[in-house]
Amino acid sequence: MNSKQLFHQIRQKQSFLCIGLDTEIEKIPVHLKKAEYPIFEFNRQIIDATHDLTIAYKPNTAFYECLGLQGWKQLELTIDYIRRNYPDIMIIADAKRGDIGNTSKKYAETFFHWLNCDAVTISPYMGSDSVRPFFEYQGKWVIVLALTSNQGAEDFQNLRTGEQERLFETVLRKSSAWGTSENMMFVVGATRASMFVKVREIVPDHFVLVPGIGAQGGDLAEVARYGMNKQCGLIVNSSRAIIYADSTEKFAGVAREKARLVQSQMKDLLKGL
Amino acid sequence: MNSKQLFHQIRQKQSFLCIGLDTEIEKIPVHLKKAEYPIFEFNRQIIDATHDLTIAYKPNTAFYECLGLQGWKQLELTIDYIRRNYPDIMIIADAKRGDIGNTSKKYAETFFHWLNCDAVTISPYMGSDSVRPFFEYQGKWVIVLALTSNQGAEDFQNLRTGEQERLFETVLRKSSAWGTSENMMFVVGATRASMFVKVREIVPDHFVLVPGIGAQGGDLAEVARYGMNKQCGLIVNSSRAIIYADSTEKFAGVAREKARLVQSQMKDLLKGL
Repeated sequence: MNSKQLFHQIRQKQSFLCIGLDTEIEKIPVHLKKAEYPIFEFNRQIIDATHDLTIAYKPNTAFYECLGLQGWKQLELTIDYIRRNYPDIMIIADAKRGDIGNTSKKYAETFFHWLNCDAVTISPYMGSDSVRPFFEYQGKWVIVLALTSNQGAEDFQNLRTGEQERLFETVLRKSSAWGTSENMMFVVGATRASMFVKVREIVPDHFVLVPGIGAQGGDLAEVARYGMNKQCGLIVNSSRAIIYADSTEKFAGVAREKARLVQSQMKDLLKGL
Repeated sequence: MNSKQLFHQIRQKQSFLCIGLDTEIEKIPVHLKKAEYPIFEFNRQIIDATHDLTIAYKPNTAFYECLGLQGWKQLELTIDYIRRNYPDIMIIADAKRGDIGNTSKKYAETFFHWLNCDAVTISPYMGSDSVRPFFEYQGKWVIVLALTSNQGAEDFQNLRTGEQERLFETVLRKSSAWGTSENMMFVVGATRASMFVKVREIVPDHFVLVPGIGAQGGDLAEVARYGMNKQCGLIVNSSRAIIYADSTEKFAGVAREKARLVQSQMKDLLKGL
């Protein structure tokens, strides 16, 4: 998938929503727990109910890994399901991997070959050789963590690394030179929308994946105000606020309503693009 | 496992060697490829041939993940095999995970509950809440990346974050306050042994996991000179230089010889402890 195709989807759906599939067995409705693959069954119904409102799904690998082989199996089923039924939708593996070159190559195989995702999130701490192996796959994306939405982001990401620069800005500046705006994106948390001014100075053209809307408290209009570019340039994620909006048999319908609310806001924000 | 048990093992075996199980299907001897679980079969023979010379095994998850469910199954088999046959040996999942709190909790489940490893490597980029959930497991260890052995380490880890401090030093100083020397270790690459002086100023008592010996070119005597403390405080990893020393049916015996060479050196370096 390239940025044109992504922007096409954004205009078509009038949405730049990504739904995070952080699916936990403890949180899904009781009636699904009897299914052979309850996590997949939950995801399948969420996907069927929301696919026309969202441009991307983002399973976070931690929620699947912790269930062992059964978890990985259900991640595989989920991705296959999206691929077969909604081939235009971007699949982002939120995996936050990153290792030395020969090892990152293996992670690239995992997410781009085995799981056939479109994008994977990567931690920048180990530098260029931990990111470059992912560029060997045409039409795939690396999404580098820059400024995350959690409290711990203060510990290192906001440290001064120069007179005019903080660590997350150095990460944006340096790592954006390793790839292009056709194979790299960045994670910038919505909980600090004003930071998007700085972000757009450094990476005006890149798409940015924005977590922190919904359960984490970020403000969508603020994010759009400071972060949007000519191709929209934003993929805004919501996980818990959509997928766990209801815990009864009506969960998928309620998730759709929640997604629709966000999408309506997005439609307004996209006016003129 | 606590640090006393680890030090006991070090003295008993006169070794602070960790063998990295970065097992690749392309690199294992041809005769093993017919086995139902070739990666596991390779690991099993390496483990049987080296268990008395090494205090830890460190499978890197990337090499298993990239094989899909078959890979995870073989990682599970490998860990179970070590647990059942050599219960004193430390098992380190080299996973380099790290995410917001509710997600890191799931990674902790993965590596400490499902896979029952003793330790897991963590990237510090997302800060304290990405590390703390791992402390909820008694007798388990978080190994935080500080200074890695790859070229990309220069990109961010060596940036000045203060007049007297570089990023990896800030990581050591701040993150060492989140846990104790009984539940935290740090990764410090052997390719820059003189850096251990700085490291030991900040974390004199912690164990340090040292990659970069062997294929990556680090010098063992230098590392011991600058990095050793009263409890040894070092776990030095070698992966490729040991496990791929030979590609014939004699691979396990040759791996043992290579491990024995390193262990003999370590025995000398441990004199007086």
